[in-house]
Amino acid sequence: MCSVINRVKPVQRALALGLRLRTSTEGLSCTAADSRRFCPGVRAVLEPLQASSRRCCSSMASTKGLFFRQLYELESITYTYLLADTETKEAVIIDPVLETIDRDLKLIHELGLSLKVAVNTHCHADHITSTGQMKKRLVGLKSAISKFSGASADIQLSEGDKIKFGKQYLTVRETPGHTDGCVTLVLADQSMAFTGDALLIRGCGRTDFQQGCAEKLYQSIHEKIFTLPDMCLIYPAHDYLGRTASTVGEERKFNPRLTKNLEEFVNIMNNLNLPKPKKIDISVPANLVCGVYEV
Amino acid sequence: MCSVINRVKPVQRALALGLRLRTSTEGLSCTAADSRRFCPGVRAVLEPLQASSRRCCSSMASTKGLFFRQLYELESITYTYLLADTETKEAVIIDPVLETIDRDLKLIHELGLSLKVAVNTHCHADHITSTGQMKKRLVGLKSAISKFSGASADIQLSEGDKIKFGKQYLTVRETPGHTDGCVTLVLADQSMAFTGDALLIRGCGRTDFQQGCAEKLYQSIHEKIFTLPDMCLIYPAHDYLGRTASTVGEERKFNPRLTKNLEEFVNIMNNLNLPKPKKIDISVPANLVCGVYEV
Repeated sequence: MCSVINRVKPVQRALALGLRLRTSTEGLSCTAADSRRFCPGVRAVLEPLQASSRRCCSSMASTKGLFFRQLYELESITYTYLLADTETKEAVIIDPVLETIDRDLKLIHELGLSLKVAVNTHCHADHITSTGQMKKRLVGLKSAISKFSGASADIQLSEGDKIKFGKQYLTVRETPGHTDGCVTLVLADQSMAFTGDALLIRGCGRTDFQQGCAEKLYQSIHEKIFTLPDMCLIYPAHDYLGRTASTVGEERKFNPRLTKNLEEFVNIMNNLNLPKPKKIDISVPANLVCGVYEV
Repeated sequence: MCSVINRVKPVQRALALGLRLRTSTEGLSCTAADSRRFCPGVRAVLEPLQASSRRCCSSMASTKGLFFRQLYELESITYTYLLADTETKEAVIIDPVLETIDRDLKLIHELGLSLKVAVNTHCHADHITSTGQMKKRLVGLKSAISKFSGASADIQLSEGDKIKFGKQYLTVRETPGHTDGCVTLVLADQSMAFTGDALLIRGCGRTDFQQGCAEKLYQSIHEKIFTLPDMCLIYPAHDYLGRTASTVGEERKFNPRLTKNLEEFVNIMNNLNLPKPKKIDISVPANLVCGVYEV
């Protein structure tokens, strides 16, 4: 995975094997879950994309040479994003989920993609990442997460880092507040931002346990996300109402929390009275070691 | 709604009032459902889109001046699509669902869109359409469905009809086989096709009750959908594995049913042994009258 990350980081290869880790991690803003799990079998079809189907695979044709696909996992309602350079077929996956690893690997194999990096926007509390399991099944795949997440990974991300895949790249913007290790990943041309649990559609991540800090989240969103172009598409880690995307312009105008001033925002966030995420006690320990702890 | 439909059709205004209807309608390929429903209150913000946010709203920037948003309903896992002309703000909604009417109207209002047509790809058996309720809440909105569906609507669609919204339009392709009244809606530049329950991602609609006909479905998909460009994005009415889109090229290559010959396909379809859709007995009678029967 040469040259995937602009700023060289020490690779942590023994990610799941007895590393002593910081245990500071927060849960997500999860409020609902259902009981289905989908684990279709993998049928690897390692044929390359045809030239004609390369362009077609992108639903973001504004970014030339980009393949983009949004996927979701139906229990935690987590969005997973697959991006690739249509020429080199180098790919990145964002927030992959353990329950949907077979679906995701099957798609990657069908399209002939070479997955370089599996990046998590933060250490999730509502589901276990498939990153560690993917590394076992895809040679050369590297895991990435914020250096402030407390979680082990091959690549520890910092502000300004670039996650490269072919001619494309994502730039890391640190957006703490939901957790200390939250990042927003911004496509090179700023047409798309993957905001994790920092900014959600007409909402935001909760800030009421572990490292949660409403003031910090407010500042992160206003300084790191709302400064992106109005037309930049927002792709969050979750949406519990079946919405798949928004834009910076829409959220600046219509987000019922972020259109408030700091004091009002903090007051809202401190009075949400949300239940503890159901899976936090198994998800966080697992995600601190790339999802492979007692899986 | 002048000039919405290219070929003029008689408007059926008494859509829910004692019309004698054909009762032949099939169910969907639904296999799973959860128990959540989301009905947030409508907060109408009837401000126009800013010029800068017009472009941003489209995740299909390849089609100039198009706003596009994919949404889904979490019980029946039905996809709803909202498309608009970013200049005139005239909009079309495809397959809206009763449970998510408030979410959809709120978004329409926030973005300042003028919804002209609510079109159903067929008479659904797994959920009730919100079309009739939307008509009650939005002045001038027209309903549309295939003339072969047996369902009442303001506009009875036929092969080649154009559903216009501003400078944009969708062309109707009749794709029977799941039901007699199934249509696929193709964007003018053939960059997107809304296939309903005819072609699903790596699958297709069931053909085992009511007007279902495997031979007809095979022919519809091969002649009306697989003849579109490889790069044409496929947006189905459902996906039960959390996939949001595919392409003609992908489905031609990887669809496990449609890559078979006709005989093998028919054999697969005749041996699916699927359970009867849970809601068919309430959904079909309601959808035959635009979703307003005993709602």
